[in-house]
Amino acid sequence: MADSRSKALEFAKQNRGRFLDELKELVAIPSISADSAHKSDIKRASEWLEAKLKALGFENVKSMDTGGHPIVYGDWMKAGAKAPTMLVYGHYDVQPPDPLELWESKPFEAVKKGDYLVGRGTSDMKGQVIASLAAVESALTAGEVPVNIKWMIEGEEEMGSGSMADFIRANSKTFASDFALNPDAGMLAADQPTLTYGLRGLAYFEIHLTGPDKDLHSGYYGGTVRNPGNELARLISGMHDEHNRVTLPGFYDSVRNLDDEERAEFKRVPHASDSDYIRAAGVTELWGEEGYTAFERATARPTLEVNGILCGYTGEGPKTVLPSKAMAKVSCRLVADQSPKQVEQQMMAYVKEHCHPAVKCEVKMISDGDPAISERDSRPMKAMDKALEAIWGKKAIYRREGGTISAVAYMQKILGAECVNTGFGLPDDLIHSPNEHMHLPTWEKGVDALIHFIYNLGET
Amino acid sequence: MADSRSKALEFAKQNRGRFLDELKELVAIPSISADSAHKSDIKRASEWLEAKLKALGFENVKSMDTGGHPIVYGDWMKAGAKAPTMLVYGHYDVQPPDPLELWESKPFEAVKKGDYLVGRGTSDMKGQVIASLAAVESALTAGEVPVNIKWMIEGEEEMGSGSMADFIRANSKTFASDFALNPDAGMLAADQPTLTYGLRGLAYFEIHLTGPDKDLHSGYYGGTVRNPGNELARLISGMHDEHNRVTLPGFYDSVRNLDDEERAEFKRVPHASDSDYIRAAGVTELWGEEGYTAFERATARPTLEVNGILCGYTGEGPKTVLPSKAMAKVSCRLVADQSPKQVEQQMMAYVKEHCHPAVKCEVKMISDGDPAISERDSRPMKAMDKALEAIWGKKAIYRREGGTISAVAYMQKILGAECVNTGFGLPDDLIHSPNEHMHLPTWEKGVDALIHFIYNLGET
Repeated sequence: MADSRSKALEFAKQNRGRFLDELKELVAIPSISADSAHKSDIKRASEWLEAKLKALGFENVKSMDTGGHPIVYGDWMKAGAKAPTMLVYGHYDVQPPDPLELWESKPFEAVKKGDYLVGRGTSDMKGQVIASLAAVESALTAGEVPVNIKWMIEGEEEMGSGSMADFIRANSKTFASDFALNPDAGMLAADQPTLTYGLRGLAYFEIHLTGPDKDLHSGYYGGTVRNPGNELARLISGMHDEHNRVTLPGFYDSVRNLDDEERAEFKRVPHASDSDYIRAAGVTELWGEEGYTAFERATARPTLEVNGILCGYTGEGPKTVLPSKAMAKVSCRLVADQSPKQVEQQMMAYVKEHCHPAVKCEVKMISDGDPAISERDSRPMKAMDKALEAIWGKKAIYRREGGTISAVAYMQKILGAECVNTGFGLPDDLIHSPNEHMHLPTWEKGVDALIHFIYNLGET
Repeated sequence: MADSRSKALEFAKQNRGRFLDELKELVAIPSISADSAHKSDIKRASEWLEAKLKALGFENVKSMDTGGHPIVYGDWMKAGAKAPTMLVYGHYDVQPPDPLELWESKPFEAVKKGDYLVGRGTSDMKGQVIASLAAVESALTAGEVPVNIKWMIEGEEEMGSGSMADFIRANSKTFASDFALNPDAGMLAADQPTLTYGLRGLAYFEIHLTGPDKDLHSGYYGGTVRNPGNELARLISGMHDEHNRVTLPGFYDSVRNLDDEERAEFKRVPHASDSDYIRAAGVTELWGEEGYTAFERATARPTLEVNGILCGYTGEGPKTVLPSKAMAKVSCRLVADQSPKQVEQQMMAYVKEHCHPAVKCEVKMISDGDPAISERDSRPMKAMDKALEAIWGKKAIYRREGGTISAVAYMQKILGAECVNTGFGLPDDLIHSPNEHMHLPTWEKGVDALIHFIYNLGET
């Protein structure tokens, strides 16, 4: 297939201008998922993608109803039953452009400024979707393609992919694949190709305590009954031990340990030293589980944080109330092989053991997401690793990330498709902010890297 | 003076109808201190009292400017230099009548319903002010009076007596007295005369913690920096030890211990058993400092309570924020011989010792009040004790109260005048609520008891 690879790379080179025009077209559709006023733009964006997939020769192309915004599907299965099937993930929705007055150009009219294309979605992630389409088009045009390809391009990522789990579950045959490609994971620097093989999961709780059945006067009742505010403080305070480890029973039991190779690799990550964390967070010193660097803790270790507390009177001045109720939002970031359900049970067990029975306690898990981890030496990962090195002349860094990308976890958990997470967005692309932009030389390299990736998948 | 006493009691008996009319007149002035729309009513009420004091033969009668609402003063010093001087405290302001729709009669038109007079301020405390005036009028009319009398009737009690401390300090010579009478302290039941000899003080704090210098994403920073929410929880949680004692350093050092006599006396207080507290607070069991009953803890022991906590995101749904700031309102109720200043230093010391230096911590005392305690065997207390027994045929209960009455503490601390706290309001008078009322038979007994008190002061 060496010939096809060369042809494909040449095709991409010849068509860069057109690819960029296509990106501008897609950016021009203000497909803001969170704003119902843009529902017709969401439809236009999905239709634009349908048309594009059809033009590339994809079959069964459709905008599938998720109950929320549609997911664009299409497949090309002509590599044959013996070839692997790749599911390419993307999202066509974008964040709102506000605050508008901080934009130096119109957010939905992408303009080239030097090496950059400026506009909402250029980096996150219409640029990455177009790069993937461009690579696939180049390969399909060149001739032989060693992999079957399915697309799953959603319209709710910027809203939390709320419809996706049920949708994938209901359509698991349609999306059945051997592995997935997610080009939304960015890279650490323009000269540092990056593979993101681990993402943390989430178990987000609300804890509601009720002490006395009404607010009491602290002058008359102070010192006589359990104050749910004090009780909540005691509960939260006990969730970490003196080594800053989480005390929920069994919390670490299913945590996959970091191996030495991973830890050595993390040392290569730029701007991720403890002193970088101190500077970025605006603190004087760090905190966390003993025995790990900040980067390790933030990406590859499970953690527990208070996200919010509300109790009693919080307005101006003194009010001598002994409150009836106290509420905390507490969330855990999870790593492989934890599951939100397990952690929910651990939280229930902790609270049952530690909350005094005189205080009524209710725990609700209000959001959850599975952690995701991809084997670093799988065939697709090796194919991408080699592709990135071919273009950048440098080994990719294998990193884990602290956040949660729901789609990646769903593809892994529901479809059994481990995800190759990469991408060509850079840390300073101002995604979600005014003047979002994309670095064009990196984007062009990205298209070429994806072409190499496709052909590398055909090598044994 | 036995003759004068009888004459005075007879005068009171003959004039009960008029005293009641005077109370109705005073109730008809809606002197709501918290509502600036009623500023002219505040003035009318103070002028009504001025006129009354002048009519009774008081001298130097005036409405004194406090910067806030005026304090009505007047003195009658004809008992002579050798006789003691009594300062009678009262307040002519009332709570707003809201919610108006729950009143069964007009709040500012006092009406007699059976044994009760219904209207805003009938019990708290225009009724008590009129009872005091009636007793003094009866004694002055009857002839010999063994005590010099000064009045200090304020117009800001329902707003927290904010102007009073500075005002008393600036006018300490005018108000100089040997002891004070506060008829605003109520009684435990219509058949149970009551002397309140202790009131708790207050030291009310806001604690503000700042961790990172901005809110962080818990996915990217969770587990790397001290979360001020967790830190606040740890701080609050550590403020009590395993015996539910307050851990601020030196907190109990200046606490005057309860003696056996007091504890035996408290057992006589009706509706104050631990099971009464459980029922009233709506809890399944009590909590508090080991070794004391709930009543003792709530009235005669210092306590610490969380009044409010606010941190991070407290709206609907999950927000994965690692908050920059956390705030708690925490207040201590104090008993003799603690002082708010001392406790402020103890709180500062606690926080300095326990708050990690990586978290910025600011503690502000936003409200304070001294505790007050009166000797139970002083001459005025004995005089009141005897007076109450003469009328009710029953020994008064000596109780302490958990709340704070600023005026009592100021009179004690600034003027050195210990206060005889009694009164004829009942626990079910609905003060501060719609349909506030006063029990007329108790009120009439109260007038007689105050007459006895005045004459008892003349006995050695």
